[in-house]
Amino acid sequence: MLTRVTLGDGGRTIELGWQDGASSRFHAMWLRDNALDDKTRSAGNGQRLITILDIPSETRIGAAAIKGEVLEVTFVPEGKTVGFPAGWLCSHVYDCQEARQPGWTGGDIRRWTKAMMQNSVPRAAYTEASRDGNVLRQWLAAVRSYGFAVMDGLPAESGALCKVADLFGYIRETNYGRWFEVRAEVNPNNLAYTNLGLQAHTDNPYRDPVPTLQILACIENTVEGGESSVVDGFAVAAALQAENPEGFRLLCSYPARFEYAGSSGVRLQSKRPMIELGPDGELICIRFNNRSLAPVVDVPFAEMDTYYAAYRRFAELIEDPAFEVTFKLEAGQSFIVDNTRVMHARKAFSGSGKRWLQGCYADKDGLLSTLAAIEHGFKEAAE
Amino acid sequence: MLTRVTLGDGGRTIELGWQDGASSRFHAMWLRDNALDDKTRSAGNGQRLITILDIPSETRIGAAAIKGEVLEVTFVPEGKTVGFPAGWLCSHVYDCQEARQPGWTGGDIRRWTKAMMQNSVPRAAYTEASRDGNVLRQWLAAVRSYGFAVMDGLPAESGALCKVADLFGYIRETNYGRWFEVRAEVNPNNLAYTNLGLQAHTDNPYRDPVPTLQILACIENTVEGGESSVVDGFAVAAALQAENPEGFRLLCSYPARFEYAGSSGVRLQSKRPMIELGPDGELICIRFNNRSLAPVVDVPFAEMDTYYAAYRRFAELIEDPAFEVTFKLEAGQSFIVDNTRVMHARKAFSGSGKRWLQGCYADKDGLLSTLAAIEHGFKEAAE
Repeated sequence: MLTRVTLGDGGRTIELGWQDGASSRFHAMWLRDNALDDKTRSAGNGQRLITILDIPSETRIGAAAIKGEVLEVTFVPEGKTVGFPAGWLCSHVYDCQEARQPGWTGGDIRRWTKAMMQNSVPRAAYTEASRDGNVLRQWLAAVRSYGFAVMDGLPAESGALCKVADLFGYIRETNYGRWFEVRAEVNPNNLAYTNLGLQAHTDNPYRDPVPTLQILACIENTVEGGESSVVDGFAVAAALQAENPEGFRLLCSYPARFEYAGSSGVRLQSKRPMIELGPDGELICIRFNNRSLAPVVDVPFAEMDTYYAAYRRFAELIEDPAFEVTFKLEAGQSFIVDNTRVMHARKAFSGSGKRWLQGCYADKDGLLSTLAAIEHGFKEAAE
Repeated sequence: MLTRVTLGDGGRTIELGWQDGASSRFHAMWLRDNALDDKTRSAGNGQRLITILDIPSETRIGAAAIKGEVLEVTFVPEGKTVGFPAGWLCSHVYDCQEARQPGWTGGDIRRWTKAMMQNSVPRAAYTEASRDGNVLRQWLAAVRSYGFAVMDGLPAESGALCKVADLFGYIRETNYGRWFEVRAEVNPNNLAYTNLGLQAHTDNPYRDPVPTLQILACIENTVEGGESSVVDGFAVAAALQAENPEGFRLLCSYPARFEYAGSSGVRLQSKRPMIELGPDGELICIRFNNRSLAPVVDVPFAEMDTYYAAYRRFAELIEDPAFEVTFKLEAGQSFIVDNTRVMHARKAFSGSGKRWLQGCYADKDGLLSTLAAIEHGFKEAAE
């Protein structure tokens, strides 16, 4: 609820008072660029119809008034009057100083440890998720919050994992195919295709852009061992930062190198940090994979010792059972990980049975878009 | 050619002298982690078989000697002796101080203006590129260097653009499909599907990860106007930085927001800067699209004015004809852009003819991998 409006700086800014006593300033240029009228934004698809160069650089607010739940603003020299709903203004306030420590994460992200998640692994049955928008919403929201979730009840047959991706988005095809087999082979071109244990890792850090989601589905798993586990890279990064801020800073500040050239015609290389922050310090990506880490050559000699010590400590924390959630996939079960955040591992296996999994990659844009659209639909239905 | 080897810091570092008088230091831990023996790296696929935790934290070099073109190093306490080819060491030196200004780009990147490229647009004929590895290599290398290239001689038929992606990698399927139509529609869900001109832009900045390549192929183009043009975002960013370092810094330092919700079931949102630098200041991505820029709410109030002025100036430079290379696609012609760098635009069109293009997305990992594999093959053949 708006209570007060005052122009500042000759109309180049405006200050709004809210019922709770707070106030927020906006710039005339920002308001003009974000105007919601149908000459500025397409009524049909919401896209902006003008460019910044269509807006006079000397734009000011000539007049402003509160009309019920709407702020009415007249821009000069255009002489254009536009209404901004108070609720829209309130949800787009940028006049607030939040001092955030590097490595912060947004409100949707819940970091977790084994104690928090081992007995409450997010899961859904495929049939329900495909039929019931609310079940799908909860499952997708779990992936957004925790970075992983299990899906039960798939057909235990080749290609079934694609059904999971179809629920929310699109498979990212790569040199490994639309999906790939994960089972012991005689001359494997990748260590994943052996019966060795695999240290917790993110997949394909040598790929840029990295696949942001991975799905692993089980068709048969009758071996001894071969359990899957997941580790929250964001939680481990926070633990590293708490005990060793300088080490955390180094893993963020210098790119690592990753590479894969295990198949003919393929030479994938990337240069990205193990812990990636956005320009505002938001923690946005973890890349960790001992198998494909290439020689790191972007760290200055004087810092290499400390960098390697931080890498070692990061690896130790990743191996700490306190961070590890473990489950054994049965035939017809699958799990998804946010490959920018959650590491996955496999225990070694042996015995006379078979372990046959299939994996594929997909991307978070589709998942988050589908989730947002379902949430938006539910909200509209409720209103 | 190695001439001299000296241990330092009790064997925790080693200094190598080269024939040209230069010297390079390495750390024992770094060398041990990057050892090339078949217990450390798989002889078959090159992947590392050990983790950092398999290497003793107190690792030192007990002895080192030059044996011809190989440095032989014995690590303690493991008592493990490994050979490093001098050429490999030389190409992985990290003991050098390069003071690089933020916004630098690597040796493969050539920034360009209209004067440099209008009369030398990189191009290849599809049939030759698909048959001749050298033609394909040159075309892919042009995409790596300049961020765009034309391909002629495709069938003027629906879906032909996929043949271009098949030359080097994989299509990124999205909510727009594996490929999409770009032609004037009556009720378009995207302004691309009108006859309006489109300001130079990168595609889908609201998608994270952004599609890193775009291919546009022409099936028919008999209208008046409708020319395509491309602008090197890295060149424009450098121009902005030269005249307005503070504005450049602001566009790098704060995330913008992008969104698209023009179709049912789709609500794509991202939070990424218009000019993205890696942690070491390397210029790695441009995102610029007036249609999908959402309200920017991550810039502090005190800097918003300067941010908007920088955005305006960036847009002005992007519109500067000195940066724009223009061509009109004929039926059977296509072009590819590096969508993390090169903006593309379309002139408005009219008249009685038809303009029918198709577009698709793909990713740079596959393109650069295929190029590296071809280059590696040529090098091996030459040796």
